[in-house]
Amino acid sequence: MRFDVTILGSSSATPIFNRNPTAQILNINERLFLIDCGEGTQQQLLRYGIKSQRINQIFISHLHGDHYLGLVGLLSSLHLNGRVKPMSIFGPPELKEILDIQFKYSQTELRYPINFQATHTESSELIFENNDVMVETIILEHRIPCTGFKFTQKKRLRKIIREKVEALNIPLDMIPLIKRGMDYTDSKGLVYLSADLTTDPDEPKTYAYCSDTICNWKYLDQIKGADTLYHESTFMHDMLQRAEDTFHTTSLQAAEVALRAEAKQLLLGHFSARYRELEPMLLEARSLFPNSKLAIEGHTFEI
Amino acid sequence: MRFDVTILGSSSATPIFNRNPTAQILNINERLFLIDCGEGTQQQLLRYGIKSQRINQIFISHLHGDHYLGLVGLLSSLHLNGRVKPMSIFGPPELKEILDIQFKYSQTELRYPINFQATHTESSELIFENNDVMVETIILEHRIPCTGFKFTQKKRLRKIIREKVEALNIPLDMIPLIKRGMDYTDSKGLVYLSADLTTDPDEPKTYAYCSDTICNWKYLDQIKGADTLYHESTFMHDMLQRAEDTFHTTSLQAAEVALRAEAKQLLLGHFSARYRELEPMLLEARSLFPNSKLAIEGHTFEI
Repeated sequence: MRFDVTILGSSSATPIFNRNPTAQILNINERLFLIDCGEGTQQQLLRYGIKSQRINQIFISHLHGDHYLGLVGLLSSLHLNGRVKPMSIFGPPELKEILDIQFKYSQTELRYPINFQATHTESSELIFENNDVMVETIILEHRIPCTGFKFTQKKRLRKIIREKVEALNIPLDMIPLIKRGMDYTDSKGLVYLSADLTTDPDEPKTYAYCSDTICNWKYLDQIKGADTLYHESTFMHDMLQRAEDTFHTTSLQAAEVALRAEAKQLLLGHFSARYRELEPMLLEARSLFPNSKLAIEGHTFEI
Repeated sequence: MRFDVTILGSSSATPIFNRNPTAQILNINERLFLIDCGEGTQQQLLRYGIKSQRINQIFISHLHGDHYLGLVGLLSSLHLNGRVKPMSIFGPPELKEILDIQFKYSQTELRYPINFQATHTESSELIFENNDVMVETIILEHRIPCTGFKFTQKKRLRKIIREKVEALNIPLDMIPLIKRGMDYTDSKGLVYLSADLTTDPDEPKTYAYCSDTICNWKYLDQIKGADTLYHESTFMHDMLQRAEDTFHTTSLQAAEVALRAEAKQLLLGHFSARYRELEPMLLEARSLFPNSKLAIEGHTFEI
C-alpha cells in the first residue's frame, strides 16, 4: 500500500525566493491528504502535477499565516473548477470564521460542502479514520495553539499466496475469509490452514507531523516509534536562544527528538530564511540521528 | 520623472502554472505603489528583485481572492522583517475586517501602523495625493463592488536650461522661482524671461487600471485620454456571452474601450486559464487598437 509524503513548502514565515511556506501531500493508498496550506500551495500542486481535486481531507496545524494562507485560494479554485464532492477540513476553531468571512465578502457560494472539524489543544484526539488510516492530533507548544498530526496505518489483512490458491482451485468467495484467518476445507474434507495459504501483512506504519513547536519533550510519547517523523527545524543549534524565544526548535533538538522517539527516519523542514544553504543544518542533525533528511520542495519520501 | 508599471500577475481566478493572480507595482518617481495583491505576490516581489519595504501604498480593487489573498502574507512578512513605517491600504470597507480577524487569531501585533481607507462604488473619489501624483477611483461593474484606480501625475515645474543659468551666474536660490515662471533681473538691471531660461515641463501622464469589469462603457469618461490603460481581458470575443455572464471583458472590447477613451497604450491582463497561448488574444486587440500589449509577469511598461 502506497504511503508517502511530498513536500510542497519548506520555509518558515519570512519568505525566501526558492522556498515556499509549509504544505505537504500525504498519499495513503492513492488517497491524498493535504497537511497545512501556506500561501502558494495551489501553484505548488500545479508545479508538481498533483491533482488538487483528489484531495478530500485538509489538516491545518495552526493559524500562523505560513501554514494556512493558501487555503481560501485553493478552496475557491476547486469550486471554480467544478468540484461537487465534500471537503473535510480539520483545524483550529477560528479557522472556520476566517474562511466564512472571506467567502461571504467575495460572495462565493461553494458548490461543494465543507465539513469543518475543530481541533483542540487540551489533549490528543482521534479526528479521522477510514479503512486505511487513523489520524490523531499531537499536542505541540507554540506561540498560539498548535497541533501536529499522527497518521497511523491500519493493520492490513494477511496476503494470499496466489500460486497455492490457484493450484487448489479455491473459490473466489473464500479468499476474503482466508485473508481474515479462516482455514479452508476442500470437497474431500482436507483442511488447509490460513497460515499456510497466506503471508503476514505489511506492518502498519506511522507518519508524525510536528509543524511548529518549542522542543518541550512533552509530545514524545505521542510520536513514539514513528516510522517517519517530520519535525520543524527552524534554526541551527547556535541559535537555541532565538529558537526558544520564538517557540521553535533547532536541528540538533529535532534529531534528539527523533532519537528519543525511536523514529526510523527524520524529515527536517520549516527553515528560517537566514539559511540559504541547508547542508550544515542537515549535518548537524545527522551528527545525532544519521537517517535525517531535508524536506525540500518537490521531494517525495516513503514513510 | 520615472513612471512605469511592472506586472507581477496576469491570470484570472482559476490558477495556471506559469501565471500568477493579479498584482502590479507602479513606480512613480521612485516611490512604489502596489495595485492588487493576489496570492503569491510576496514571492513575485522577491523573484523580480523589488524591495517590498519600499511600498507605502496598497490599492485593492475588490474582494475576489485573486486580487487580495496575498495581502495578509505580505503585511506579515513586512512586520517580521522589521518594518516600522506606516502602510496605507485603500480598498473595500470589508477588507479591514478580513485583515483584523487574521491578525487577531495569529496573535500578530504589527510593529507598524496600517492606515486603512475604505473605497466606495457610488462615485469616483480622490483617495490619495502627494507631490507627484493624484489617485482617483474608477467605478467599475463586476459581480461584487469593484473600483479601478486612476493615477494622474501632477504638472511639474518648468525645466531649467543649465547652460544658460550657469553662463549668467544666476544665484541658486533664484532657480526655484525661475522654474515657477518668475523672470530674472541681473545686477545691471537686465531682464531674462523665465520662458527663455527654461523649457516646458513634461506633460503629466495618466495610468488607468481597470481590474475586473463588464464592458458597460460607463467608466469611459473617467479614463478618457489615459496615456496607458490597463484593462482586463479575460476572454476572447468568441466567448462574449461567457464574459457578460461573469461580468468580464473580451480582448476586442478592451481594445474598443482603449480606442474610444483615446488611450495611447493598452495593456491586456487577467487572462482566463483556458488560454495557454496569448498571441491570438493580442492579435484580436491589435486589430482594433494597434498599440496593445500583453501585461505579462516581469514586464515593465513605461506609462
